Amino acid sequence: MFCERGVTFTFDSFNQNTKTWTYGGYSTKIVVDERYVLHVPKGLDPSRASPLMCAGITTYSPLHRFGVKPGDPVAVVGLGGLGHVAVKLAASMGADVTVLSTSRDKEKDASRLGAKHFVATKEPGALEAVQGRFDLIMDTVSAPHDLNNQLTLLRNFGTMVLVGLPPAPTLLNTSALTFGNKRIAGSNIGGIPETQEMLDYCGRKGIVADVEVIKADQINNAYKRMEHGDVHYRFTIDAASLKV
Amino acid sequence: MFCERGVTFTFDSFNQNTKTWTYGGYSTKIVVDERYVLHVPKGLDPSRASPLMCAGITTYSPLHRFGVKPGDPVAVVGLGGLGHVAVKLAASMGADVTVLSTSRDKEKDASRLGAKHFVATKEPGALEAVQGRFDLIMDTVSAPHDLNNQLTLLRNFGTMVLVGLPPAPTLLNTSALTFGNKRIAGSNIGGIPETQEMLDYCGRKGIVADVEVIKADQINNAYKRMEHGDVHYRFTIDAASLKV
Repeated sequence: MFCERGVTFTFDSFNQNTKTWTYGGYSTKIVVDERYVLHVPKGLDPSRASPLMCAGITTYSPLHRFGVKPGDPVAVVGLGGLGHVAVKLAASMGADVTVLSTSRDKEKDASRLGAKHFVATKEPGALEAVQGRFDLIMDTVSAPHDLNNQLTLLRNFGTMVLVGLPPAPTLLNTSALTFGNKRIAGSNIGGIPETQEMLDYCGRKGIVADVEVIKADQINNAYKRMEHGDVHYRFTIDAASLKV
Repeated sequence: MFCERGVTFTFDSFNQNTKTWTYGGYSTKIVVDERYVLHVPKGLDPSRASPLMCAGITTYSPLHRFGVKPGDPVAVVGLGGLGHVAVKLAASMGADVTVLSTSRDKEKDASRLGAKHFVATKEPGALEAVQGRFDLIMDTVSAPHDLNNQLTLLRNFGTMVLVGLPPAPTLLNTSALTFGNKRIAGSNIGGIPETQEMLDYCGRKGIVADVEVIKADQINNAYKRMEHGDVHYRFTIDAASLKV
């Protein structure tokens, strides 16, 4: 199984040793080296905890690494599969969270998830109003978008973390980094010890993803909806439905 | 006086209170608030210590901030006014310094300044040979150049610090940051306390810039030579020659 930004790919393959097909993420049984098994804390609904292995660790790791503390002004750009967990985690750490989104469609959701402020980035003057505001900006957007404007929203010595995967290179005005000693950091998922640490943290805080549970025969429709951004905020496939 | 990457600008202006002209960096006397006066340690030749207020603090600050330790593999891109001081400082901190330069013209100088390795970046296979090598890359280049290739030379979690000021935006492949959790940081000069710390450090280590001392009437020629990159590695104007 290979987890990639909103889509979980499963690879079915023929095992030459056992002369049988393996079914990847669609398997009902799987043999795993104990070093790669994680413990999901009791009390977390498995259907809502499963996306934490992607969105949880991807956003927890940089929030933790860059030392988010109570009161820190933190921005989350994009409220999707990654962004909605980023808001929950940052808010749980006591950060003063602002969601940046292209429209106001998700403003109520942002508030429910724990954000105190909302910026509709396409409204005139919206970005100017929060210039130099944030210690940390977590950019979860995988669509092409401008990084230079976002850099103006950082305080001096602030960091913009990229966890999305835009499809093409983007123009960077490096003087936007040099003046103000700002930083752009990439962050990609996390290792096993940190993933367990994240799960234990989510267990203590009661943090899970917002999901829609679907049956196996709804996968094609769910995939189409995902392509149109119509996901709130992750799909979880009920593995029990594979047996029917 | 305004120090800008290899050029020191001086602003002469008419003082409305005293009804006299002030002569900026060409003055033989100047009144300065004591909070902005720095102490140059004894033993440092003033003509060679003066560029430390630009090249010294610009390179010391990120080397210090990103915690360079003995044995750390550090690359310096470009061996000019900033780069030659970066090599001296990084080597004095015990780093294992590699200079990256477009040709081998400066290979001997790099070694003399304290670099242990030299990469002529336009030679076939040169960059491939040092992929994933460096904890820190200090990029001192102000000409347009490709950042994506340089990012491949960083170790995971490594940082590329930009202290040059290229004239135009450059294409950044953000996945080069995301995969490997790499960082790009801008750094611009430094504050007064850190500048004093740098001067004291240079005093203890005996570090000064390599300069050519010129007289005031040689400024125009020196400026032309600077435009052609013919500086080893900073010009210092002997203020005594202003009186002639």
